[in-house]
Amino acid sequence: MRIYDIIEKKKRGIELNKPEIDYIVNGYLIGDIPDYQMSAFLMAIYFQGMTDEELSNLTFAMRDSGDIIDLSPIKGVVVDKHSTGGVGDKTTLIVAAIAASFGVKVCKMSGRGLGHTGGTVDKMDSIPGMRTDIPNEEVFEIVNDIGLCVIGQTGNLAPADKKIYALRDVTATVDSIPLIAASIMSKKLAAGSDAIVLDVKMGSGAFMKSQEDARNLAEMMVKIGNSAGKKTVALITDMDIPLGRAIGNRIEIKEIIETLKGSGPKDLEELSIELASQMIKLSGLYESEDIRSMARESLQNGKAYEKFIEMLKAQGADIDFVKKLDEFTKADFSKKVISDKSGMITEMDTEKIGIAASVLGAGRLKIGDDIDYMAGIKIIFKKGDIINKGDILAEIYSSDSTKLKEAEEIISKSYKFDTELKEYPLIIDIIN
Amino acid sequence: MRIYDIIEKKKRGIELNKPEIDYIVNGYLIGDIPDYQMSAFLMAIYFQGMTDEELSNLTFAMRDSGDIIDLSPIKGVVVDKHSTGGVGDKTTLIVAAIAASFGVKVCKMSGRGLGHTGGTVDKMDSIPGMRTDIPNEEVFEIVNDIGLCVIGQTGNLAPADKKIYALRDVTATVDSIPLIAASIMSKKLAAGSDAIVLDVKMGSGAFMKSQEDARNLAEMMVKIGNSAGKKTVALITDMDIPLGRAIGNRIEIKEIIETLKGSGPKDLEELSIELASQMIKLSGLYESEDIRSMARESLQNGKAYEKFIEMLKAQGADIDFVKKLDEFTKADFSKKVISDKSGMITEMDTEKIGIAASVLGAGRLKIGDDIDYMAGIKIIFKKGDIINKGDILAEIYSSDSTKLKEAEEIISKSYKFDTELKEYPLIIDIIN
Repeated sequence: MRIYDIIEKKKRGIELNKPEIDYIVNGYLIGDIPDYQMSAFLMAIYFQGMTDEELSNLTFAMRDSGDIIDLSPIKGVVVDKHSTGGVGDKTTLIVAAIAASFGVKVCKMSGRGLGHTGGTVDKMDSIPGMRTDIPNEEVFEIVNDIGLCVIGQTGNLAPADKKIYALRDVTATVDSIPLIAASIMSKKLAAGSDAIVLDVKMGSGAFMKSQEDARNLAEMMVKIGNSAGKKTVALITDMDIPLGRAIGNRIEIKEIIETLKGSGPKDLEELSIELASQMIKLSGLYESEDIRSMARESLQNGKAYEKFIEMLKAQGADIDFVKKLDEFTKADFSKKVISDKSGMITEMDTEKIGIAASVLGAGRLKIGDDIDYMAGIKIIFKKGDIINKGDILAEIYSSDSTKLKEAEEIISKSYKFDTELKEYPLIIDIIN
Repeated sequence: MRIYDIIEKKKRGIELNKPEIDYIVNGYLIGDIPDYQMSAFLMAIYFQGMTDEELSNLTFAMRDSGDIIDLSPIKGVVVDKHSTGGVGDKTTLIVAAIAASFGVKVCKMSGRGLGHTGGTVDKMDSIPGMRTDIPNEEVFEIVNDIGLCVIGQTGNLAPADKKIYALRDVTATVDSIPLIAASIMSKKLAAGSDAIVLDVKMGSGAFMKSQEDARNLAEMMVKIGNSAGKKTVALITDMDIPLGRAIGNRIEIKEIIETLKGSGPKDLEELSIELASQMIKLSGLYESEDIRSMARESLQNGKAYEKFIEMLKAQGADIDFVKKLDEFTKADFSKKVISDKSGMITEMDTEKIGIAASVLGAGRLKIGDDIDYMAGIKIIFKKGDIINKGDILAEIYSSDSTKLKEAEEIISKSYKFDTELKEYPLIIDIIN
């Protein structure tokens, strides 16, 4: 087998077989295949796409390139949840608590990574005392005991994906939908759960800008998951506006807790209920019940919140934090972003709002950067609201007063006013 | 300017401007841009193609990356000729002699390179005493004196092309037609002549297998040449059968001399007359005359042959060689390839016949390999001939008796017999 012939085949749109895909993935990981051949191969995939069979084989080869977590010590059905990422997206801890309150096992290893705000684990780290680097054996005990545990990613999951991603990142091949699908799913499959619920974001605040791309990605990931023998469902959800009203780390934890207590923003609550319902459904524990109503009820009757508190305790968090939330979420510096226009907000450049959060210190630009847990944005008015000049669009927070001005300007410019409103439903489609 | 953005633009099919193309070509040559980004860029070109403007700018950037030969010491119009290469293609020395016999200046720097047989310079080197590494000043004197000189390539022509070609060769991007056009033309333009005649081969013995590809390549190269201010003409010619009957090095020199004496194979003579006529036409020396008849006449009245002998003398060749040709072209070992079928020859796999020549020792597999000047093939029957079982299809020669068997088998298999004959004209089209 020669790498040249494999590139040539892909270039001509001829389907690659499993040995060929294994050869290129493993050869690249161990350094037998140089970067310059891999990047030509990846660019050929960008143009020619991949068949379902190729995509599964690519995903499996990347999954099998490193550790595969054995979750068999956990009793029950373990269901994972993954979001492709968006501004203000904070559903993981909410849905984990809801699902676990119904007996679904949630053993989530979450990334830190880069982005406008930190990842789920960064948000958790903003809670005083919280442990997110717990050894696997203890994690399994916690999950068996209370039903959920969320920690930072450990082990060497899908190292081939990691190496390939780094190359895509510098060769303009990040936005190949099959490569995105294989990248996400290789890590999800290596993480070892029995079933997977995916939240594919689309819109101005998401990587997938068009509904067509989001649908393609969702369909590919569901096919891959099913071909690996894992029940997989994908939601396509709107990310043309920030989800909820809080963007940051500790400020998002506050909104998570409010939502778990039944008083969160409507959109965040709706999406969390839908995602949790899909997880509960995939667990097979409640075949005939009205799962959505059950999930909604858990936010009203305190069951989900209770489960979340159990998790905080099990993972060492300072429970005083929850009691003194207002005090714990006061940043040293803040500023109000005032509207200089009147009218209906018809558009929000959600990606720009995310960038503003990053400017304030809420996110990482490069690996190893510190995160300002107190930095963030509270969105007051959103798309569809009719406002007057002088109204407060948002409040911004930072531990560094010099960051406020730039963030304020970015946010001001990200609001568009017009007469016609184009709105998507929050949940655009469910693919399974 | 960032290489990432340039790859991204090309990937999306957005036209690159001159500074962007200069940046990538020069950046790659000096090592600022790594192989893995260049190979992704080249693969994107394979899929997106290049506009005329981009193609000229790419060619100019590669031309300007090294030496540009200054032919101004030569008095008169210097016309170059280039063939994309085929089996039995030996027109260069014939057309150079014809054109020079009419006052066209031919100062040709020719490659050695790889291939089924050696290049023009290898064929010349098979003539005892022949000098093909003459310093430029003496070359210019010879051309001013007798009108033609053919030597091996000197100087550092288009080094960016060389580096890019080496990368294309290992990343399956050799067969991008715009990249082929830019590669050929960058070297032709750096070689400094005033006008260029191109012979684009198509068919089973050529790199361009289809007429569409050959036409695209021809049109691109003519546009590039004209955009650089050089009068450029391209012929598209048939390479579905070997050109002439001799394939090898010294055996081809023999056929060249026969053709210059008016007794060469018809197809080789016709193509040589057409190519030489185009060169004479581009020189502007004979605007209203019937140039083709003049060129044909020069093969009958000995003028072209005389010019060739002048060149041999000027370049130091042993003139006895020409007088004792039969003696000088006897290989140590030979074999007859006998037909085991009767019928009409309707197809010849010309590429395979070329490979057989290479097996016999006539070509180089890698740089530095020795060439067996005596090795080669004499084709007896060609496409369209009706033969009987037992007839001699070809004779093969080598200085190594162990090579004969394999070559014989390859040649046997490359003849196809059928009832319907599909023939192209030798000269399919002229693009200018």
